[in-house]
Amino acid sequence: MTDSTEGCNGAARRLTRRRFLAGAAAAAGAATVGPVLGTGSALAAGLDPRGSRSSDMVPFFGRHQAGIATAAPNYLCFAAFDLAPQRKSDIRDLMRLWTGAAARMTTGQPAGEPNTAESRAPIDTGEAQGLPPSRLTITFGFGPTMFELDGEDRFGLRSKMPAALQPLPAFEGDQLEPDRSDGDICVQACADDPQVAFHAVRNLGRLALGSVAMRWQQLGFGRTASTTRRQETARNLMGFKDGTDNLRSDDLKGMQRFVWAGAEGPKWMEAGSYLVARRIEISIDQWDGSALREQEHTFGRRKSTGAPLTGTSEYDPVDLKAVDASGKLIIPADAHIRIAAPSNNESRRILRRGYSFSERVDPSTGLLDAGLFFICFQRDPRTQFVPLQRNLSRHDHLNRYTTHTASALFAVPPGARPGGFVGAGLFVRQRGSAFEP
Amino acid sequence: MTDSTEGCNGAARRLTRRRFLAGAAAAAGAATVGPVLGTGSALAAGLDPRGSRSSDMVPFFGRHQAGIATAAPNYLCFAAFDLAPQRKSDIRDLMRLWTGAAARMTTGQPAGEPNTAESRAPIDTGEAQGLPPSRLTITFGFGPTMFELDGEDRFGLRSKMPAALQPLPAFEGDQLEPDRSDGDICVQACADDPQVAFHAVRNLGRLALGSVAMRWQQLGFGRTASTTRRQETARNLMGFKDGTDNLRSDDLKGMQRFVWAGAEGPKWMEAGSYLVARRIEISIDQWDGSALREQEHTFGRRKSTGAPLTGTSEYDPVDLKAVDASGKLIIPADAHIRIAAPSNNESRRILRRGYSFSERVDPSTGLLDAGLFFICFQRDPRTQFVPLQRNLSRHDHLNRYTTHTASALFAVPPGARPGGFVGAGLFVRQRGSAFEP
Repeated sequence: MTDSTEGCNGAARRLTRRRFLAGAAAAAGAATVGPVLGTGSALAAGLDPRGSRSSDMVPFFGRHQAGIATAAPNYLCFAAFDLAPQRKSDIRDLMRLWTGAAARMTTGQPAGEPNTAESRAPIDTGEAQGLPPSRLTITFGFGPTMFELDGEDRFGLRSKMPAALQPLPAFEGDQLEPDRSDGDICVQACADDPQVAFHAVRNLGRLALGSVAMRWQQLGFGRTASTTRRQETARNLMGFKDGTDNLRSDDLKGMQRFVWAGAEGPKWMEAGSYLVARRIEISIDQWDGSALREQEHTFGRRKSTGAPLTGTSEYDPVDLKAVDASGKLIIPADAHIRIAAPSNNESRRILRRGYSFSERVDPSTGLLDAGLFFICFQRDPRTQFVPLQRNLSRHDHLNRYTTHTASALFAVPPGARPGGFVGAGLFVRQRGSAFEP
Repeated sequence: MTDSTEGCNGAARRLTRRRFLAGAAAAAGAATVGPVLGTGSALAAGLDPRGSRSSDMVPFFGRHQAGIATAAPNYLCFAAFDLAPQRKSDIRDLMRLWTGAAARMTTGQPAGEPNTAESRAPIDTGEAQGLPPSRLTITFGFGPTMFELDGEDRFGLRSKMPAALQPLPAFEGDQLEPDRSDGDICVQACADDPQVAFHAVRNLGRLALGSVAMRWQQLGFGRTASTTRRQETARNLMGFKDGTDNLRSDDLKGMQRFVWAGAEGPKWMEAGSYLVARRIEISIDQWDGSALREQEHTFGRRKSTGAPLTGTSEYDPVDLKAVDASGKLIIPADAHIRIAAPSNNESRRILRRGYSFSERVDPSTGLLDAGLFFICFQRDPRTQFVPLQRNLSRHDHLNRYTTHTASALFAVPPGARPGGFVGAGLFVRQRGSAFEP
């Protein structure tokens, strides 16, 4: 873990050419994938090749990419890839290839037409064969470095960079690991089965071997913030209900106002969104040793019910002005729900969609690596996540127990229609809608 | 990753006193847990405190510990703990405490009676509140180091050490990480929900803070080998059906012969078993680049169906003698199913119960850390896992794509009855059955 006050975007990127070249060599077998098409008709017919319940399937194509407004399933596999040196048209071909493969996989099909030639590597790695679609969603995003890296216009895309994709500033207390931060393209795969999500990310990486290299990966379980009103609020690894006050995707007005990019930015991003990911480690031992009162004052809510300290049940109003008999604020001045409250953030909201994670015990400290992989979507990070996180990083009592150890930002283009591909609008000469490439 | 030819048991153990002391300080609040009892009656009545379907619950008490013969659910949280310096009677108290807490949690209750005193740390960390029992099983085991470490009889238990718990030898190709290997006590938690499994391990560690320190943890998903005949064979991350030929727990004769310890060892282990865990990393990129024929010859099975190369469907007989028209063996001489076949291992079998895992991208190599967390149970590792793995480590073609990076061995005592505790037989003066402590 490095203490980076300059953020991660400018940090030395350890990606070596070797990684891409090794990939290119191994990709020889996979290079014959060819066009991956033909899912539109299956979807149109409501058919699933494996006869699974269609409720297991989330449509891949649409005005918005799936995986944002979609009710979050329980498992996440998130990866960021770096692009090898290549032409802009190669990136366009990559997105076309990925779109086709992603659409196939969300219906439970393999990443490409099965290869039965014994002398070639299988097109699909196989671990999802026999598993249902599992509500798989695959969401693509483009990082700032795809448009510009160290002042260089790497792929001739600099002029297309949205102003809202401005790299995040450093926040107080950040201890970001460059190896787990940033990236040129992200893939967020969510599913009811982690093997299905893992399979999707792995196979996308494999199809593009030589063209991309996986920069980092994060698996998650136990989706926290609810993204629809029907979902019950889940608990994070601090044991608290997380996301009671989240923007919900069935709040269409709120989504329009706070999540979907509009005419204010480039045409190719209209109906898209901006994704911020933060790997937030929890000091489990320290938290577990703290008193119940301290924990409840940290959040401003009751641990058992999720009720605000000014109420008795979860959805009771959060009264930030309420004081006790001695005139003391009932929800403390540095409580998480106060600092994060829209009323303290110019009424701005974000759509959270995070997951818990736990990996290894750090042998140098003996401490367990566990926490929250925070993901949020918004219309413009400059006026939503950035001021909110600046506020939280300075005042939130929760900071005593958490550390942000990785960070990433991506522009998530609008959805594609069958026959089109995600991000298409980025590659047309005239400014066109990605929905009509 | 260190290349250890001496195995891990004698390797420097980096655990510092600091870890235990920090724990002891923080545990002040938790030390008041008191006896955790009273689940026997709830179980006897078939009641679940949350009203979940009783099919969600696996009985904790019984002749054998749950989590061995039990049909494996999809998620694993496995941890190994090291014991702080303490008296033998403290370890007995620890196992009594852990048994009570484990029994509670398997019924969906918190680890201890809820603490409503605001000035104290909550007894239970809370992240499983509201979640069903999720078929949680918790299985305890004792490592060789609990009986003897560097020649020292640490807890006065050396005379009770089973001969079958002899530390595993080094195998060809092993690249074991001491920080992820061995341990004094293991906890295997399996469940339908990883948050439930994680919660169980975390809370056991927390209840014993100051007495134990977590040495390593491994999360797993996608259980591979089926453990009952009703379960469909799942696929590992190499895309192959894994465990077709596994010993099944509904084969009672096989279980008696190959899994449950009998009168040949110490009385306290009768009806127990021995657990071997191996963290097996898969060279994903290399495997994914290999031809279908190479992959199928590596395993000796078809990738699509799982059929042996001498058959057409999964359960067709594996004919190790069959040759093709040119007289060549159809199942190659170094194919995994040949080397692992009972007929090549003096008819000895093991009960496999492994899980897939994937964690981070290694920043120094750019390679994804993914593989199989292999777990197996057997009556005597000296005559089962050890010769089998010696054979595999020398001859298995699969070794080209896999590396064993961690290893552990534990004696898993028999089950406990309500009122008793796991491992009780280890602490009675006369040789008694653990089932009647």
